[in-house]
Parts: sequence; structure tokens; C-alpha cells
Amino acid sequence: MKSDTKDSALKRLARIEGQVRGVSRMIDEDRYCIDVVRQVQAIKAALSGLEKVVLDDHLKTCVDRALTSNDLKDRREKVEELVAVLGGRKK
Amino acid sequence: MKSDTKDSALKRLARIEGQVRGVSRMIDEDRYCIDVVRQVQAIKAALSGLEKVVLDDHLKTCVDRALTSNDLKDRREKVEELVAVLGGRKK
Amino acid sequence: MKSDTKDSALKRLARIEGQVRGVSRMIDEDRYCIDVVRQVQAIKAALSGLEKVVLDDHLKTCVDRALTSNDLKDRREKVEELVAVLGGRKK
Amino acid sequence: MKSDTKDSALKRLARIEGQVRGVSRMIDEDRYCIDVVRQVQAIKAALSGLEKVVLDDHLKTCVDRALTSNDLKDRREKVEELVAVLGGRKK
Repeated sequence: MKSDTKDSALKRLARIEGQVRGVSRMIDEDRYCIDVVRQVQAIKAALSGLEKVVLDDHLKTCVDRALTSNDLKDRREKVEELVAVLGGRKK
Repeated sequence: MKSDTKDSALKRLARIEGQVRGVSRMIDEDRYCIDVVRQVQAIKAALSGLEKVVLDDHLKTCVDRALTSNDLKDRREKVEELVAVLGGRKK
Repeated sequence: MKSDTKDSALKRLARIEGQVRGVSRMIDEDRYCIDVVRQVQAIKAALSGLEKVVLDDHLKTCVDRALTSNDLKDRREKVEELVAVLGGRKK
Repeated sequence: MKSDTKDSALKRLARIEGQVRGVSRMIDEDRYCIDVVRQVQAIKAALSGLEKVVLDDHLKTCVDRALTSNDLKDRREKVEELVAVLGGRKK
């Protein structure tokens, strides 16, 4: 992972951790269910953003390195992995 | 929210907070991007599970209370909110 | 269903039927897989649009009728059905 | 596209076309909105199945051909296209 991707990912994760703790607080304080659900959805959106950042970096580094290499097995593996993990994004 | 839903939600959130910290650690240790993405997807799945628990409780308590009440405005509001928040689940 | 919703839904469906036939033609003519997949995704988006039109009408007619009625069983049934079908939208 | 994938895709499309016409009929006959929506969701699921069949074939033919070729530009293009179209599956 490139160093600025790493920084950006860690900052996003710190924010997400704060959001998760915020939801625990909301539940402790008996806040309205719908507001809790909306906040949980916001965290999922933040995680999808993080996922995109990590995948974009992966495409530009590991996958491109495999594509430019002479190792056919590695190229195939990288593409299969990618397809599997992008399939998982639908969930 | 019912007291056992509250307990279950708080336990799930504690676990999710641990998972988020785990992803920060993975990034710190330069773990493979695809493994990071898979872990992020697992957290999103855990949040969807939490969302379901909170929504099921909301249906059985607040929404049902509104449906059995004589307050038409409240019934409509509860249903509109529900439709909006369930629409958000697709994201 | 209101009569203008019905018209709009039938027009959308005629267009969607044409799009489905178009995909068969693309496959017959050995068109590029990625273009086929993009067209299939466009049809799914058109169906989601139709779904929204039908659901919005349903909310304004059947669901609202149940909410304003004195029949608690009907109110509950309508809301349960709605939650189930909105859950299905995620797929 | 391989010949048996083509056959399977065309059969699926014929069925889907019938399902789309069925929904028009349901609307003509003023069938219950929720049943219409469920049927529309079933068509979307059938289209997702078709999408998967076409993409699997694409991976085994075009993408693998690019990966085994010496054309780096083609390899990159095929992977970029794939990522874009798999991103579209979330919708």
C-alpha cells in the first residue's frame, strides 16, 4: 500500500471507530431506533469508502505489478482474487 | 428498545469496535490489501446484522405501538420513516 | 393502482421487454460480453425504477387506506408485507 | 462466448421476456401491488443470474486470453473493464 493511502486509511478508521463508539453511546442513552439505524448505515457507507480507497491502491500497485510481470500464475491469481472480492462488495 | 435487544446490540458493537481496531493494525503491519478488504466487508456484514436487530425491535415496539394507537399522524410518520430507512439498507 | 401509475408502469414494461429482446439480439450477433453485461445492468436499473413507481403508488393507496382504517389486523399486515418486500429490494 | 453459454443465455432471456410480459398482464388485471413488486424482484434476480453466466464465460475466454497474451495494454484494459462492470453489479 502506498504511504499516503495508508495514512488516509488509518484516518478513516480512527473516524469509523469513533462512530462505532458513538452508536454504543446512543443505545446506552436510549436514543430513537431510527436514528441509531441511520448512524449504522452511515458507518457502512464510510467502510465502503475505505474499501474503495484500499482497492484502488491495490489495483495500481499489486495488480498492475502482476499484469506487467511474466508470471502467468500470479496474473491469474490476482484477477481471480479481485473478482471474488468485488463480488463481495454487493453484500 | 427492549433490554435484551440493548444488551445484544452493545455486545455486537463492542465486537465491531474490536474488528475496526483490528483493521487499523492490519494496515499498520502492511498486511495484504485483499485481506484488509475482506475484513472491512466482514465488518459491514456485522453492522447489517446489528441494523436488523435494531429494526426488528423497532417494529415490535415503536411501530406496533403507533399502529395500535389512535394517532393517525403518528402511524403515518412511523411508516414513512420505516420506508425511508429500509430504502437506505440497499446502499 | 392509480390509472396514471398503471399507464407509466405499462410503458416502462414495454420498454424493458424491448431491452430484453435487444440483449438476445446482442448475444445472437456475438457482441462483446462486457457490453451485454452493461445492458443487463441497465435493464435491472429500469426494473428498480418500475419497482419504485409501483411501491410509491402502493404506499399512497393501499397502505394509507389501511392506516386510516379501523382494522388493526390489516394495518399490521400491510406494514409487515412492506417490510418484507423492501427487504427484498437489497438483493 | 462459448456456444453452450450462448444457448443457456438465450434460454434465460426467453424466460425473462415471458416474465416481463407476465408483469404487464398482472398490471392490466389490477393484481395486488405487492405481488407485482415481488415478480419484478424475481426478474431482477433472473437477470443477475444471466449476468453471472455471461461474466463467468468472459473470465474464462476473453480475460484469460488477454492474461496469457503478451499485450500488456490489452491485459490492463480487460482488468479495468472488469472492475468497472463488477462495480456496477452493486446497483
